[in-house]
Amino acid sequence: MQTTIRVGILGATGTVGQRFLQLLDGHPQFRVTTLAASDRSEGRRYRDACAWRLPGDMPDAARDLVVQAPAPPLDCDLVFSSLPTDIAGPVEAQFAQAGYPVISNSASHRMDEAVPLLIPEVNPDHLGLLDRRRQDGAGRGFIVTNPNCSTVMLALALAPLAARFGVEAVAATTLQALSGAGYPGVASLDITDNVVPFIAHEEEKIERETRKILGRLTGGRVAPAGFAVSAQCHRVNVVDGHLAAVRVRLARPAEPGELRGAPERPIVVRDEPDRPQPRLDRDAGRGMSLTVGRIAPDAVLGHRFVVLSHNTIRGAAGAAILNAELLLARGYLKPAD
Amino acid sequence: MQTTIRVGILGATGTVGQRFLQLLDGHPQFRVTTLAASDRSEGRRYRDACAWRLPGDMPDAARDLVVQAPAPPLDCDLVFSSLPTDIAGPVEAQFAQAGYPVISNSASHRMDEAVPLLIPEVNPDHLGLLDRRRQDGAGRGFIVTNPNCSTVMLALALAPLAARFGVEAVAATTLQALSGAGYPGVASLDITDNVVPFIAHEEEKIERETRKILGRLTGGRVAPAGFAVSAQCHRVNVVDGHLAAVRVRLARPAEPGELRGAPERPIVVRDEPDRPQPRLDRDAGRGMSLTVGRIAPDAVLGHRFVVLSHNTIRGAAGAAILNAELLLARGYLKPAD
Amino acid sequence: MQTTIRVGILGATGTVGQRFLQLLDGHPQFRVTTLAASDRSEGRRYRDACAWRLPGDMPDAARDLVVQAPAPPLDCDLVFSSLPTDIAGPVEAQFAQAGYPVISNSASHRMDEAVPLLIPEVNPDHLGLLDRRRQDGAGRGFIVTNPNCSTVMLALALAPLAARFGVEAVAATTLQALSGAGYPGVASLDITDNVVPFIAHEEEKIERETRKILGRLTGGRVAPAGFAVSAQCHRVNVVDGHLAAVRVRLARPAEPGELRGAPERPIVVRDEPDRPQPRLDRDAGRGMSLTVGRIAPDAVLGHRFVVLSHNTIRGAAGAAILNAELLLARGYLKPAD
Amino acid sequence: MQTTIRVGILGATGTVGQRFLQLLDGHPQFRVTTLAASDRSEGRRYRDACAWRLPGDMPDAARDLVVQAPAPPLDCDLVFSSLPTDIAGPVEAQFAQAGYPVISNSASHRMDEAVPLLIPEVNPDHLGLLDRRRQDGAGRGFIVTNPNCSTVMLALALAPLAARFGVEAVAATTLQALSGAGYPGVASLDITDNVVPFIAHEEEKIERETRKILGRLTGGRVAPAGFAVSAQCHRVNVVDGHLAAVRVRLARPAEPGELRGAPERPIVVRDEPDRPQPRLDRDAGRGMSLTVGRIAPDAVLGHRFVVLSHNTIRGAAGAAILNAELLLARGYLKPAD
Repeated sequence: MQTTIRVGILGATGTVGQRFLQLLDGHPQFRVTTLAASDRSEGRRYRDACAWRLPGDMPDAARDLVVQAPAPPLDCDLVFSSLPTDIAGPVEAQFAQAGYPVISNSASHRMDEAVPLLIPEVNPDHLGLLDRRRQDGAGRGFIVTNPNCSTVMLALALAPLAARFGVEAVAATTLQALSGAGYPGVASLDITDNVVPFIAHEEEKIERETRKILGRLTGGRVAPAGFAVSAQCHRVNVVDGHLAAVRVRLARPAEPGELRGAPERPIVVRDEPDRPQPRLDRDAGRGMSLTVGRIAPDAVLGHRFVVLSHNTIRGAAGAAILNAELLLARGYLKPAD
Repeated sequence: MQTTIRVGILGATGTVGQRFLQLLDGHPQFRVTTLAASDRSEGRRYRDACAWRLPGDMPDAARDLVVQAPAPPLDCDLVFSSLPTDIAGPVEAQFAQAGYPVISNSASHRMDEAVPLLIPEVNPDHLGLLDRRRQDGAGRGFIVTNPNCSTVMLALALAPLAARFGVEAVAATTLQALSGAGYPGVASLDITDNVVPFIAHEEEKIERETRKILGRLTGGRVAPAGFAVSAQCHRVNVVDGHLAAVRVRLARPAEPGELRGAPERPIVVRDEPDRPQPRLDRDAGRGMSLTVGRIAPDAVLGHRFVVLSHNTIRGAAGAAILNAELLLARGYLKPAD
Repeated sequence: MQTTIRVGILGATGTVGQRFLQLLDGHPQFRVTTLAASDRSEGRRYRDACAWRLPGDMPDAARDLVVQAPAPPLDCDLVFSSLPTDIAGPVEAQFAQAGYPVISNSASHRMDEAVPLLIPEVNPDHLGLLDRRRQDGAGRGFIVTNPNCSTVMLALALAPLAARFGVEAVAATTLQALSGAGYPGVASLDITDNVVPFIAHEEEKIERETRKILGRLTGGRVAPAGFAVSAQCHRVNVVDGHLAAVRVRLARPAEPGELRGAPERPIVVRDEPDRPQPRLDRDAGRGMSLTVGRIAPDAVLGHRFVVLSHNTIRGAAGAAILNAELLLARGYLKPAD
Repeated sequence: MQTTIRVGILGATGTVGQRFLQLLDGHPQFRVTTLAASDRSEGRRYRDACAWRLPGDMPDAARDLVVQAPAPPLDCDLVFSSLPTDIAGPVEAQFAQAGYPVISNSASHRMDEAVPLLIPEVNPDHLGLLDRRRQDGAGRGFIVTNPNCSTVMLALALAPLAARFGVEAVAATTLQALSGAGYPGVASLDITDNVVPFIAHEEEKIERETRKILGRLTGGRVAPAGFAVSAQCHRVNVVDGHLAAVRVRLARPAEPGELRGAPERPIVVRDEPDRPQPRLDRDAGRGMSLTVGRIAPDAVLGHRFVVLSHNTIRGAAGAAILNAELLLARGYLKPAD
C-alpha cells in the first residue's frame, strides 16, 4: 500500500508557493493538507487569499483550505518552505526544532554547516549531514535546502564535467527571468525595452552555493570545491527561464565532442546554433530538464556552453519536490502515525 | 571660410543609413548630396523609396533626393557605406579605386591589412596605414572602417586599461539590441518573452577586431594585440543599446578604485549598483558615450565591469562620422575642386 | 471498429501548419499521412524542411515524412489547408475538383457562395450548402472554411446573444497577437514598446465574415445577418491570444445578469474585473474555449464585454479540426476504400 | 523685463513629478524653487530622495533642493500638483485656501463645480469659473485641473468635430502605456506577453471628463456636453504613449476628407495606413502634439479614427504646464511682491 505524506506549504500565496501547489497536484505520494503564509491572508480561504497568477486554474484541493500562520504545529508530516528571506530563517528553524522535516527553497539556511544544499543528481551523499545530526541526538526534524534558481542549472551542468575532467575555474553570466523576483517583483517600467545588470545578492549566492554543492562530504562536513566561480547577473524581459553563458577551465582539457557527451539526463543537449532559448526550452522535461547548447572552445577559459532551465520549476518548487522525493526514497520521511 | 564636404550614403534606406541621415542633419562640415541603395529603390525619390522608421521625421534635405545605384561616379567628395555585407566588399573597393574616400560601417574590409579599423579615441595612429598606401602610389581613394557595434564599446573600454595596466585576457558576454540586426531583422515571434543565444559571426568579429584595434602599427602594418578575447553573444528584447558583461585579466592587478579612475571621456562611469541600463543610458552623450558600471573584483579573471553603448549611433553611424571627422581634421579629406 | 481518416496538410511548414501537426498528434480519428508545402521544402524530410517553432518537439510521426508539392493527388482522404493567401485559392479549388474534402483555414474561399464558413457551435446548418452542391451533381470533393482568427471569437460570443436578444449593431476593437501574422511576420523593431493600429484586410474580414456566419441558410444560400459590424484592429506585443473589446446593441435590451448567463460552452465567463488576459486565459479549454469578461452596460451601444481566444488554436488550426470532426460526425467524410 | 514665477511641485519624486522638473528645466517664465512630496523623502535633498527614472540626468537646479512636506506655506507663487489620489484632494484644497494657485494633474477636484477642467486649445473660456469665484469673494488661491491622460487626447480630437459637425456619440477603446500607472505601477509579470483589460476608474473618468470639457459655461457653471461617451480601457506593454481607437457619430455626417481637414495644431494628421504608433509618434511636437490617423467611415457610428499622445507629457505634466501658461497669459498668475 502506498504511503501518503501530508504536506504543508509555507509561503503558499507567493509565486513559488503557487508552483508548489501546481506541481504537487496529483502527486502520487505527497498530498497538500495545509497552507500557511506570513502575509495578511491568514484565516482566509486560499481561494480568497491568493491571487492565482499561473496559467490554468488553482488546484481544486487548495481552494477551500484556510490559510494558517506559518508556525508549528501544522497538520502535516513535512513542510515545503518558500517564505520570504526576511522571515524564512527563524521560522524554518522553529519548524525543524518542532520535529518537522523542512524542505526549503529559501536562502536562509543554505550555507549552514549542518544543512544539505541538495541536488539529487549531484550530491545525494550530502544527506550524510542529516545522519550526523541524528547521531548527535537531534530530533526528527531537519532542514534540507535546494540551491538558488541560477545555481541549480550551473551545478547540474558542471557536475559531470567535474567528475570526468576536473573543474578549475568557472565564469557564468546569467540572463534571468522576471518570475525569479517573485510578485510584484520587477516593475514593468524598469524592464520593458531594457536590461538590468544587477540582482541583489545573486552573484554571491551563485559563487558560494556552487562550491558547496560540488564540495566533498568528509568527516561529517562539506568542504567546498576548490575552484573559483565568477557570476555576473542580469535581469531580462522574459517571463520564465534563466539562461547562463558559461566558460569553464578544465583540469584535463576536453575535445568539444567529449563535452557533448558528458551531460546526462536531466540534461538535454541541443546542437542547433541558436539554442537553448527560454521560450522554446524552458518546459523541457516538464520544466525539470536543463537544456545545454553552444558547446565550443573558449579562447580564455578553454571551454564554453550555454545552459537554460525553468527557474520556478527546476530552479525552485520542482527542485524542492525532487529533494523531498529523494528523502522519501532514502527513508528520511515518514508519515505521522 | 568653412569647408563643406559633400557626402554620399551607400545603403541609405537601411537602419544605419537612416541614422547617417539623422546624425548628419545640420552637421557643420558634411552635407549629404547623394543617396544610393542596392535595393529596388533606385530611381525613386528618397521619401518614396524609404520607409523611415526612426522617431521623428525624415530630414527635409533628403526627401527629394533621387536614390542612385551604389556605383561610381556619384556627386560627392566621400561616401559613407552601410551596405549589406554580401555586396559591401566589391562595391566599396570599386569606390576606393575610383578615388573616393570610403568611410565604411560594413564588415567586409575591416580585417584587410591596408585598411584602418579605427576608433579615434583609441588608435588614431592606425591612419598611418593610409600614409603607407599613398607612398605606395595608390590614388586619392581609400577605405576606413569602424568596428562591429559590440567591438566599439569593448575596445573603447579596454583601451585605457591596456595603456595603464596591460591586458592579458578578456571575456565579454553581450546582450545585444534588436536594431543591431537591421530591418526587418529579428522576428518578433523569436524574441518576445525570449533570448536568442546566437548572432551569426558576431563572436568571431568581436574576438578578431578587438585585437586589431588594440594592436600596434609597426613597419606599416598592424600587429594584433597578443591577449586572448572570448565573446559570447545574445540577442535580447531591447530596441537600442548593446550591453556587455566583461571580465578582464590585467598584467598589473589594479585596485577597484584605480579602474574607477581609468576611463575617460567618452566614457561615463556610474556608481549605482544597477547601471548601466539600455533604456536609461543608451542616449548618454547623444548616443556617443559609453556607460561603464559595476566595476568590481572578479574571482576568475581578476576584474569585471559592465559596459553599454548605443549600437546604431556609437556602434555604427556615429562611429563612422567620428572617423570622418578625424580624417577631415588630419587632412585626409578634401572637397573636390 | 474505429475509422481512421488519412490527413494531408497543405502549408505544413508554416505557423498554422505546425499547429495542425501538434493538435492532430494522437487524434483518435485523424492520422497525418501527407505533408505538403509551397516553399522550397518540397522533397525534403519534414524534420529537415521545417524550423519547428512551437514549444515542445515536432511530433515523431511527422519527422520523416517527405514534404510534397501542394497538388493532387496526395495520399490522404482529406486535406487541411493553411496555405498562404496568394496561392490558397486555386490550389484548394484544384483539390476540391479532384475529389478531396478541403478543410481550409485560408481566406480565399470563405466568402464563396457555395462554401460554408463554419463554426460547429454556431452554424452547423450551413453544411446544407454542401448538400445542395451534391444535388447539383458536384463530385465528392468540397471546401469548408473556418473564419478569420478574430472573427471566430466574435461570432461565437455573439451567437447566443443573437439567438436570445437579437443583435442590431456590433463594434469590436481588437488587440491581436503576433502569431496571427505567421512567421517571420511582424518585425520585432515594429512592435517592441509599440502598438501597430493596422492589420491588412483584417477589419473588412471581420465585418464581412461575422455577418455570413450569423446569417441564415434559405433556399440553398446564406443570407448575411442584417446588422452592422464595425472592427478596428491593432497588433500588440503578445505572442498568442487575440483580445477584442466589444460593444453591442441588442434588439431587446438585456440586464447584465442576463448576458452573464447567455454564453455557454465553449465560452468561459470570468467575473474578475481584470480578465480575460492573453497570457492567463489563452489556453483555457486547451486553447479551444473563449474567455469572456467585463460584461457591463455601455453608454453608446447598450452592452459591452471583452472576449479572448487562442488565435492559432481556436482561431485557426483547432477551428479547422473541429470543422473536420463535425463533417465526420455528419457523414461528410469517408476513408478511401 | 520678464516676470519669473516661482514654482513648487507637489509629488516631486513620482513619475509625473519628474516630468514636471524635466519640462520646466529652462522654462522662460517658471522657475522651480520648491519640491514637496508626501513620502519618506521629506527633509532629504532631491538627489538623494528621488530615484530618477527618466532618460537623461536630473536637472541640476533640482539636485540640491531639500524636499518639503506638501503643506503651505511653501516658498513659491504657484504649485503644480501630481500628488497621489488619496491625498491630493485635501492637500490641494488647503493650498488654494492659503492663497496659492494650484495647477493640478490629480483627479480629486476635476469634477468640482467651481474648478475648471482645462485644455487651453479647447475650453479656455471655462476659466470664467475662476472669475465667478473671485466675484464671490474667494481669495487669490484657486485650483485648475487638467484631464486624465486619455481624456486629453480624446477631447482635443473631438473639439473641432464638435464645433464643425456636432458630436452625438463617442466610443473610445484605449491601449494605454505603462507609465500611466506611475512607479512601480504595473508588475512586469502582469504585462509581459500580455494585455490587461482593466484600469481602475479609468473608463468612468474618460466618460465624465470628456463631457465636462466639451460642455458649455453658462450662468457661471459648466453644463456637460449632452452626448454619450463610452470608454473601454486596456493596459498594453508600451512604455509611453496612449492610443485610442475612436468611433464617433456626428450630427451632420461628414465626408472623410472633411474630417481629414478638421484637426488643427496641436494635432498632426498622418495618412499612412499604419500610424499613429506609440514609439514613432509619441514625441511629436516634443510630446505635446496628438497624432491622428486611420480616419475612415464606420459601419456603426459613422466615423472612426485612431488618436495617440504622450501620456506623461501632453497627458499629464505638459498639460498642466500649458494650463499654467494660459493662466499667466490671461493674468491669473502674479509673482509675489
